[in-house]
Amino acid sequence: MKFCPNCAAILTIKIPADDSRERHVCEACGSIHYQNPRNVVGSIPVYGDQVLLCRRAIEPRHGYWTLPAGFMELGESTSHGAARETLEEAGAVVRVGPLYSLLNVPHAEQVHMFYLATMAYPEFSAGEESLEVALFHEHEIPWGELAFPTVKQTLEWFFADRAAGVLSGEFHVRSRDVLPSERI
Amino acid sequence: MKFCPNCAAILTIKIPADDSRERHVCEACGSIHYQNPRNVVGSIPVYGDQVLLCRRAIEPRHGYWTLPAGFMELGESTSHGAARETLEEAGAVVRVGPLYSLLNVPHAEQVHMFYLATMAYPEFSAGEESLEVALFHEHEIPWGELAFPTVKQTLEWFFADRAAGVLSGEFHVRSRDVLPSERI
Repeated sequence: MKFCPNCAAILTIKIPADDSRERHVCEACGSIHYQNPRNVVGSIPVYGDQVLLCRRAIEPRHGYWTLPAGFMELGESTSHGAARETLEEAGAVVRVGPLYSLLNVPHAEQVHMFYLATMAYPEFSAGEESLEVALFHEHEIPWGELAFPTVKQTLEWFFADRAAGVLSGEFHVRSRDVLPSERI
Repeated sequence: MKFCPNCAAILTIKIPADDSRERHVCEACGSIHYQNPRNVVGSIPVYGDQVLLCRRAIEPRHGYWTLPAGFMELGESTSHGAARETLEEAGAVVRVGPLYSLLNVPHAEQVHMFYLATMAYPEFSAGEESLEVALFHEHEIPWGELAFPTVKQTLEWFFADRAAGVLSGEFHVRSRDVLPSERI
């Protein structure tokens, strides 16, 4: 960010009055351009004892498997975004349940949130951003070919919680921070 | 957003290839400038059976009471942001617990998240953005002078859940969407 999106003047990096952090400030029009983390919202689509995964047709991690997820858009809620991404990437209509995991990825300036979701029918198809979409039993999960550490961690938590009978009751959101060293 | 933050050219609003939504696109340098909702992170600071609130020294809602909360910053996690805001606005060091509520505010392009938090000592002080900070028993909460519907809803859920004994065990994140008509 070099130029003011409002007036095209060159931006200054400085700490504004009444602030404690450096911001992109426009000395010409007085605007301050804050930058904040973005939310990636997705689902864990469950059909019976299987989970739906997508193989990515786009970078980063082309060819690797992921839960359906993507950037939250203006004007939608986190759960609507999760349902929308599941429909767009996996062609699956899901009933969205409770928020299951929230993973902070500070080095990527992102927060990843995954909702439990159920599929009434085993109907799905690869969207434009997917090479293929498939249902997996736990023992079939391609652990070595997953796209992102937040997907791997969410699936690990999910299968452990399912085995422990946690998912049918109340539970705290599973949450932790992901480190740069966890990149896969 | 009128000008490209990268090259200062006038931006075009169009649907990029491989996308389905209008974006701010720079025809000069080829960059696409996405806009996404921002997270507001805060806490419910609990000392014994009291909750800590701040009276706002800034707009919007100057003079009204709120839970300590603010925009999540780059490089931090949601829970760290909640602890930071609690320290900055209320001068209170808290131990952050589980995520308690997640409220989508689509018309404001925000997601509000509040963490349960405990105070070891009744020590607090008004930060620059607060006129005063005080501990409240449930019957003392200034319900008619709260700053935001997400704060009101979170406190209503909190006291109901506390009375029902829910908070000491596992629970799903309390979550709903806030409508424009709920503005207070």
